[in-house]
Amino acid sequence: MANNTTTAPKGFLAAGVHCGVKKSGKLDLGLLVCPTGARAAAVFTTNKITSAAVQVGKKHIKSPAIFAVVVNSGNANACTGKLGMKNAITMCTETAGRLNAANPHKVLVASTGIIGEQLPIKRITAGISKAAAKLSDSAKAGLDFAKAIMTTDTKPKQAVRRLEISGAKVTIAGAVKGAGMIAPNMATTLGFITTDAAISKPLLAKALRAAVGNSLNKLTVDGYQSTNDTAIILASGLAANRPIVSKCPRYKKFAKVLAELCDDLVRQMALDAEGATRMFKVVVKGAATRSDAAKASRAVADYPLVKCAVHGGDPNWGRIICAVGSAGVKLNPSKLSCKLGDVTVFKNGVPRKFDARKASKVISQTEHAITVDLGAGNFSDFCYGCDLSKEYVAINAEYHT
Amino acid sequence: MANNTTTAPKGFLAAGVHCGVKKSGKLDLGLLVCPTGARAAAVFTTNKITSAAVQVGKKHIKSPAIFAVVVNSGNANACTGKLGMKNAITMCTETAGRLNAANPHKVLVASTGIIGEQLPIKRITAGISKAAAKLSDSAKAGLDFAKAIMTTDTKPKQAVRRLEISGAKVTIAGAVKGAGMIAPNMATTLGFITTDAAISKPLLAKALRAAVGNSLNKLTVDGYQSTNDTAIILASGLAANRPIVSKCPRYKKFAKVLAELCDDLVRQMALDAEGATRMFKVVVKGAATRSDAAKASRAVADYPLVKCAVHGGDPNWGRIICAVGSAGVKLNPSKLSCKLGDVTVFKNGVPRKFDARKASKVISQTEHAITVDLGAGNFSDFCYGCDLSKEYVAINAEYHT
Repeated sequence: MANNTTTAPKGFLAAGVHCGVKKSGKLDLGLLVCPTGARAAAVFTTNKITSAAVQVGKKHIKSPAIFAVVVNSGNANACTGKLGMKNAITMCTETAGRLNAANPHKVLVASTGIIGEQLPIKRITAGISKAAAKLSDSAKAGLDFAKAIMTTDTKPKQAVRRLEISGAKVTIAGAVKGAGMIAPNMATTLGFITTDAAISKPLLAKALRAAVGNSLNKLTVDGYQSTNDTAIILASGLAANRPIVSKCPRYKKFAKVLAELCDDLVRQMALDAEGATRMFKVVVKGAATRSDAAKASRAVADYPLVKCAVHGGDPNWGRIICAVGSAGVKLNPSKLSCKLGDVTVFKNGVPRKFDARKASKVISQTEHAITVDLGAGNFSDFCYGCDLSKEYVAINAEYHT
Repeated sequence: MANNTTTAPKGFLAAGVHCGVKKSGKLDLGLLVCPTGARAAAVFTTNKITSAAVQVGKKHIKSPAIFAVVVNSGNANACTGKLGMKNAITMCTETAGRLNAANPHKVLVASTGIIGEQLPIKRITAGISKAAAKLSDSAKAGLDFAKAIMTTDTKPKQAVRRLEISGAKVTIAGAVKGAGMIAPNMATTLGFITTDAAISKPLLAKALRAAVGNSLNKLTVDGYQSTNDTAIILASGLAANRPIVSKCPRYKKFAKVLAELCDDLVRQMALDAEGATRMFKVVVKGAATRSDAAKASRAVADYPLVKCAVHGGDPNWGRIICAVGSAGVKLNPSKLSCKLGDVTVFKNGVPRKFDARKASKVISQTEHAITVDLGAGNFSDFCYGCDLSKEYVAINAEYHT
């Protein structure tokens, strides 16, 4: 069977182990290693409070080559002061120590889980040794890594894409964790992408930013960025394609496929968001500016009453209009229109008779689209959202203590 | 027993009846009448999509005297085009017709309920006749009015205050409906306040704006303004106090008590918000600007993860810090601090050891305070919020169809 994990591209090893951060006994420490050194790029949260891992990552990403990424779940190492920073550095040092070629600046670190508690650092360093001993390029190792980064995710989220660049077979693979504390305009929780493409560091960064901008950064689960959001891409360069060093057609091909991979991952995240049973795409057209379109689409996707209506399969489109009107964007009330899938429910400011059963079917689908035309211009944008269920409350009322 | 309803101030009659907008058989049409004509002021939603009632209300409020307010629940008459506007005007005309002295421009109208469906106008006009025949200054009539404006509220929300102005006994009373689609910066759903104070129209408007600004406009339930939000105050002037015509001490006394009344009403709204079991006040200090303090406090109160933690009695303060960091305000990470009640959980950027059981008790109270110091300046502001429960989802996944 084909390897569809982050170890699928040439030059990557992975491992996932249980070291004891999580009480449940589930995997909670992952290693992703490129023994030959990878060009790397990353996108970090825009939250003004950042985890120690994000602060360390922002420095280390400047290294011309990255040899490893070490990730723990179950504890975010955020709001943990100087000790937290020391622990994040220790994670890099210990990982570098297990990989002969690397120095700590060539290791990236990521953490996810509860905010405001110190890491059980001894367990973590023991876990790093354990994981280093298990490193492998097998699909099992890649899957273990994907599992080790999970928090309230119910399943690992992975995707792979294969393409040809200048006659060479290139692979791009990714693993993400999602679930909660998810909002646009940052890297959306944790994402790790590997590729064997030969590509320059600036173009890798450019392709990542573009891909994340139209995928991971378009998903809102509960409207707030976490303190830990990080998306990292590592390129081993071992595919032996003609190196991508300019915005040539090879770059465009790579960037397009990377964007598709990220879109695949974000849909998995939306459907596995905390308590989610379905997802939807809000498309806003006819906006006076792109930013208005983004704002309005996000206002709809974030609105608890819309999320509840989608959960109940209830074509209560008035809540969509309410959200748009509340979003602070330019709109023309007498041109305002709304569609659920292809069912027009509101046209030029007037409600339309529609088949409520059909509309209910549309929004009860696992994936559907809500389209709003503001009637105020020619710009459009979109946002992904998911439904709000009792499970979300159950998960989040009982997460800590 | 004292009358503690909107008919308590001298000069007001009220009624509430069932006319058939709601299928449940509950009261759904209310009349509030001042036969001698009242000075009136109002605050309306800032949602760009407004109900027909809001559009009519904005015109009629300019009349020097208002004789009646007619309100229906169960249907918002929003997004209903020209027919909706015609129906809102019909509600005023019919009400004026039942009260000999009034013309339609001296009647205010308000609607609340489902968006995007036409009013059953025949039932409503029949309901207006029925209500007009029942008008009374009794406490029962006031209570019926308070019940007739309810949607998903579980109980009527009323408050009364008695004060003395220049030796005359003055009464202020209010009834509000709350429950959902509630966010700051507009008049927060529907609120009707009566008083027998003699006060000029401009000062009445000024006192209402100030009182609403610090009470109804400080509550967020789900972060979005409705299309129908309206707060109205009617002053009959029959208390025979020395008229309030300047910003004298008499004005200040009146404004202060009106603010207290509104604060009382908003707390009732928070506790009876859809699915809410408790409420909290987020106080943000140390902000660089007042607007930053308002933004940060609202970001905390709006954050589903904070609302869930409060619901679970879980002192998961990391989510509070996450919300503040995500709010786009100036903050100093090394001065950032947080308290739950009087339990310090985070001080100058470092987590503090605290008694988790005590902290859990604090946030399990029916009302409690969360205090955040941004360490970035001297401004402060606050926001009221409530917990997020499975009931909110149940109510809103099943409201329509």
